[in-house]
Amino acid sequence: MQNLATKAKAVPPRIIFSGIQPTGVPHLGNYIGALRQWVQLQHREEPETKLIYSVVDLHAITMPQPPDQLRRCKREALAALLAIGIDPDRATLFHQSSVPAHSELMWILSCTASVGYLSRMTQWKSKLSLAEGSTFEDRTVGSRLKLGLFSYPVLQAADILIHRATHVPVGHDQRQHIEFARECATNFNHTYGRHLVMPDVLNPPIHRVMSLTDPTSKMSKSHKSERSRILITDSAKDIKSKIGSALTDSIPGVSYDTANRPGISNLLDILTIFDAQERSSAQLADAYSDISPKQLKEMVADAVITGLDGIRDRYLELLAKGDAHLDKIEAEGARKARESAEETMELVRAAVGL
Amino acid sequence: MQNLATKAKAVPPRIIFSGIQPTGVPHLGNYIGALRQWVQLQHREEPETKLIYSVVDLHAITMPQPPDQLRRCKREALAALLAIGIDPDRATLFHQSSVPAHSELMWILSCTASVGYLSRMTQWKSKLSLAEGSTFEDRTVGSRLKLGLFSYPVLQAADILIHRATHVPVGHDQRQHIEFARECATNFNHTYGRHLVMPDVLNPPIHRVMSLTDPTSKMSKSHKSERSRILITDSAKDIKSKIGSALTDSIPGVSYDTANRPGISNLLDILTIFDAQERSSAQLADAYSDISPKQLKEMVADAVITGLDGIRDRYLELLAKGDAHLDKIEAEGARKARESAEETMELVRAAVGL
Repeated sequence: MQNLATKAKAVPPRIIFSGIQPTGVPHLGNYIGALRQWVQLQHREEPETKLIYSVVDLHAITMPQPPDQLRRCKREALAALLAIGIDPDRATLFHQSSVPAHSELMWILSCTASVGYLSRMTQWKSKLSLAEGSTFEDRTVGSRLKLGLFSYPVLQAADILIHRATHVPVGHDQRQHIEFARECATNFNHTYGRHLVMPDVLNPPIHRVMSLTDPTSKMSKSHKSERSRILITDSAKDIKSKIGSALTDSIPGVSYDTANRPGISNLLDILTIFDAQERSSAQLADAYSDISPKQLKEMVADAVITGLDGIRDRYLELLAKGDAHLDKIEAEGARKARESAEETMELVRAAVGL
Repeated sequence: MQNLATKAKAVPPRIIFSGIQPTGVPHLGNYIGALRQWVQLQHREEPETKLIYSVVDLHAITMPQPPDQLRRCKREALAALLAIGIDPDRATLFHQSSVPAHSELMWILSCTASVGYLSRMTQWKSKLSLAEGSTFEDRTVGSRLKLGLFSYPVLQAADILIHRATHVPVGHDQRQHIEFARECATNFNHTYGRHLVMPDVLNPPIHRVMSLTDPTSKMSKSHKSERSRILITDSAKDIKSKIGSALTDSIPGVSYDTANRPGISNLLDILTIFDAQERSSAQLADAYSDISPKQLKEMVADAVITGLDGIRDRYLELLAKGDAHLDKIEAEGARKARESAEETMELVRAAVGL
């Protein structure tokens, strides 16, 4: 009879994969919604759990941008991840394009992934600002829609499956992509045998941070106003100023009511994220029902400044060290990622007959 | 002023790329239509011309097949290419899947390739036996059509563009794919600057070999009857027997009339290929107008046996040497191909900002 220790050993270790698009320095929404969890997993997970984090630069080119901008954004994303506390000795941290196996597996998955399923996914329509019912039999749509934008969910599936990820931390809006990755694994396994691992969603973070200037929309990199978002590398002065000018309302006092008081509620939501006593937004609203919006803003600004303390300094320090330093860290991550990917590719090539 | 010799040197050397799907041992139609030209190019082209020939195994999986079969077909295709006289020291000979950059460039080209253009290409419709007007908004079509089959012209474009090929020898039915490769290069160059080389079609071979049992269709690997085709490794006995039983007609004598006498005309076409005096099919018909179909068949069989002489022996010898021998030749070709591909990928990555 096996003892418990042996039994525990027999469970294969968890592998957690996550990626971030290189859109430059992350904002508070990215940090709270995803990146902070990446850091926490380093402490919460067993030492056996593999953590694989990628700056997914191949996804960034589905909407072409100037090469200098992409290069800068990749560097900034990498430095920001290190600055928030990703430890390159604990986690595998790399640029997606450093590992050709992501593209290789994508092609192989393409051969069993259905065009119909892809065409029913919605993101290509929203990225091109098309109506829900748009089809690419329509000539204007067909010429505007590029294959990359249409097929990137298959690359995303390859990102996950190539590392045999058991878990993927994703927000609610990305769940359909994990569903699709599972579909890709199912199609492959059905055709070639059970070689790919089915990924599960990892307890998605529940915090959503809204725009400071337009609190009914999510905080976003693409919003035209820089004052709508807090970058995790913003100075204390900038954070105070941005939160100080956040759009609220003229109702007296503080209450939590996302429908009627989106601005105040967003500030309470931000406050709860950094609250040492882990109170909910409603509890915080009760506790501070009498204070003015100005006082609330000061409190939130202080909480954010404390919560992000050190990130800016570490970020600037990393950039000051120059590209060679970042490149060296990335190269080591890429080496580990290629090793992880190659294990899967060997199985896949044998299964397919390549 | 430059002298002529210097001027001539300034012209960049030609790079010729061609690929063959691993469907096992090529038949006479493949040999005459394409592969014989691969061999001839080794002698006809200047020594500076780079010749790059690939067994395109990644294309073979757009229609999944048992892995053992694919492995066998790859080995047979490689051995057959060596047996017909491809010199691995003169040409770069490799399996496509050994060079990840083919898939990498495919993804990058995907980001500027239009879905509309792809959906108007016809091959996916014919491979799925769909009507010309089929669209994949139709749910049955959408679920049967896999992304690989839909998007493989982009991989084919990458095969060519990754090696900076200046020329691609293709038959008439493949011209739309070279057009598409040029379209991919144009789209990329328009977005990122002129980095990819525009490939030209190389004087396509004019010989078409028809099925022996059904001379109104092309000789094909997929025809159910093995007697419809001559494999380039067939024994003299098999060649005699297959040509001896080729479908002809009951009109007396020999004349060249593809519409009314497809069987006899096909035999004359085959004869002209191997005719030492390089007479046309019509000239041969004139010269042999009085002989019987049986005599014509004997003549054709002898010509084919002589024309393919040695291929079978060399092929069997290569297979007898075992996998390790073939693997070693392929590995050296793959090394050269990766070098060639990496030159392009460096330019491409820099241009895109990766």
